[in-house]
Amino acid sequence: MVIGIVTGSVVASQKTANMDGLALRVVRRITPEGELSDSYVVAVDALGAATNEYVIVASGSTARQTTATDNKPIDAIIMAIIDTWQIGNRIIYDKSSQSIATG
Amino acid sequence: MVIGIVTGSVVASQKTANMDGLALRVVRRITPEGELSDSYVVAVDALGAATNEYVIVASGSTARQTTATDNKPIDAIIMAIIDTWQIGNRIIYDKSSQSIATG
Amino acid sequence: MVIGIVTGSVVASQKTANMDGLALRVVRRITPEGELSDSYVVAVDALGAATNEYVIVASGSTARQTTATDNKPIDAIIMAIIDTWQIGNRIIYDKSSQSIATG
Amino acid sequence: MVIGIVTGSVVASQKTANMDGLALRVVRRITPEGELSDSYVVAVDALGAATNEYVIVASGSTARQTTATDNKPIDAIIMAIIDTWQIGNRIIYDKSSQSIATG
Amino acid sequence: MVIGIVTGSVVASQKTANMDGLALRVVRRITPEGELSDSYVVAVDALGAATNEYVIVASGSTARQTTATDNKPIDAIIMAIIDTWQIGNRIIYDKSSQSIATG
Repeated sequence: MVIGIVTGSVVASQKTANMDGLALRVVRRITPEGELSDSYVVAVDALGAATNEYVIVASGSTARQTTATDNKPIDAIIMAIIDTWQIGNRIIYDKSSQSIATG
Repeated sequence: MVIGIVTGSVVASQKTANMDGLALRVVRRITPEGELSDSYVVAVDALGAATNEYVIVASGSTARQTTATDNKPIDAIIMAIIDTWQIGNRIIYDKSSQSIATG
Repeated sequence: MVIGIVTGSVVASQKTANMDGLALRVVRRITPEGELSDSYVVAVDALGAATNEYVIVASGSTARQTTATDNKPIDAIIMAIIDTWQIGNRIIYDKSSQSIATG
Repeated sequence: MVIGIVTGSVVASQKTANMDGLALRVVRRITPEGELSDSYVVAVDALGAATNEYVIVASGSTARQTTATDNKPIDAIIMAIIDTWQIGNRIIYDKSSQSIATG
Repeated sequence: MVIGIVTGSVVASQKTANMDGLALRVVRRITPEGELSDSYVVAVDALGAATNEYVIVASGSTARQTTATDNKPIDAIIMAIIDTWQIGNRIIYDKSSQSIATG
């Protein structure tokens, strides 16, 4: 999985079957030091992540391993909203303080 | 999934079995700021996307999760045509205005 | 899928079971502008592609979705030989003229 | 698989179903010469790897091939903790001496 | 698949179940011109490849398509040991002469 920050949303009325009700969020990947990267993924969000929250995205066939996404043509899912992210004893991100300490 | 713009098509008469009738579109990936990247993918299009439309492409085994592509030897599919793409409150792309605001 | 040009072949007498008779071709990936990239893939060829022909390669579990490759330990297959590749109204490659117009 | 070093952990209370009890570790990938790279992965750890230990991470559907991870929405798993890593006759890493010789 | 050269080995006593007896080799990827790249993969070797031999590695769920690796948590396998690798009429690698001509 990768760590990312929810930056936006995509809305699409024309889509393949069985996609109704699945929210599509744009998630920007984060570097191992906690900085924004140039890389992103569009992921299904079944957890209700807010913009700017740090999340974990699982990709590939793995994205279909939930009741909401089983047999759906999607390849990425937000599978967790991060509370804390720690490197050794250093806190990189703490949701309760809504701040990020860049390396 | 990734966001891309439909730039062209590929036609092939010699192909593996069961591929008849599946349109193959060339989709150029878009950066998280809405700019063209050097990366592309050839994807099956079952939605009838037009050239220059913004689409979402799903890859891997996921591409076979539709009636049209089940058991076919394809690894990418256009699973949605984008209406709007938004970062925070900023509209990156709005199909109704056919314009893109680059970051 | 990606677009590539067949550049060579690999021959191997020691291989995992059930691989007899499967030709292994080296396919160099092509950029979206029709130029050679530094990236390549070794793909099974069940279509008889010739050296210098432009082909479409599918990867991952997708490569096993044909009768010839079912249950085989291969992760890439030439699933089509390209006749024409077009960006908008511009022809990037036309097999009948055996030429490529680089961008 | 890739070789990485366990650098940290991620804690998440909001996650998809069936994820309780699975530890999520941040693993930084190592170059073939034994140096830290800029790339990382979040992997499930069912072996109890300690921070700074060298591990092997398997990705994709492969990550679900254990009793602990079967049918779970995860795409990376620590499948081994490395004792020794050797290039030719040169030892790159030896857990018993807890040191790494960079190339 | 990709072409690589076997450069080393990894030994691990702590690993997920069912991994006993599977040799783990470090394989450095080769560029399309026959040169060493900075990229590598750890692959299961069921063929007995020697250090410095050129091999073909298959990745993903494909790596589980052999009797030795079925249902195992591994995502890369050496599926062939290369005898010859040819680009057009030029021999890039010939195992019988144990030499490589770089481009």
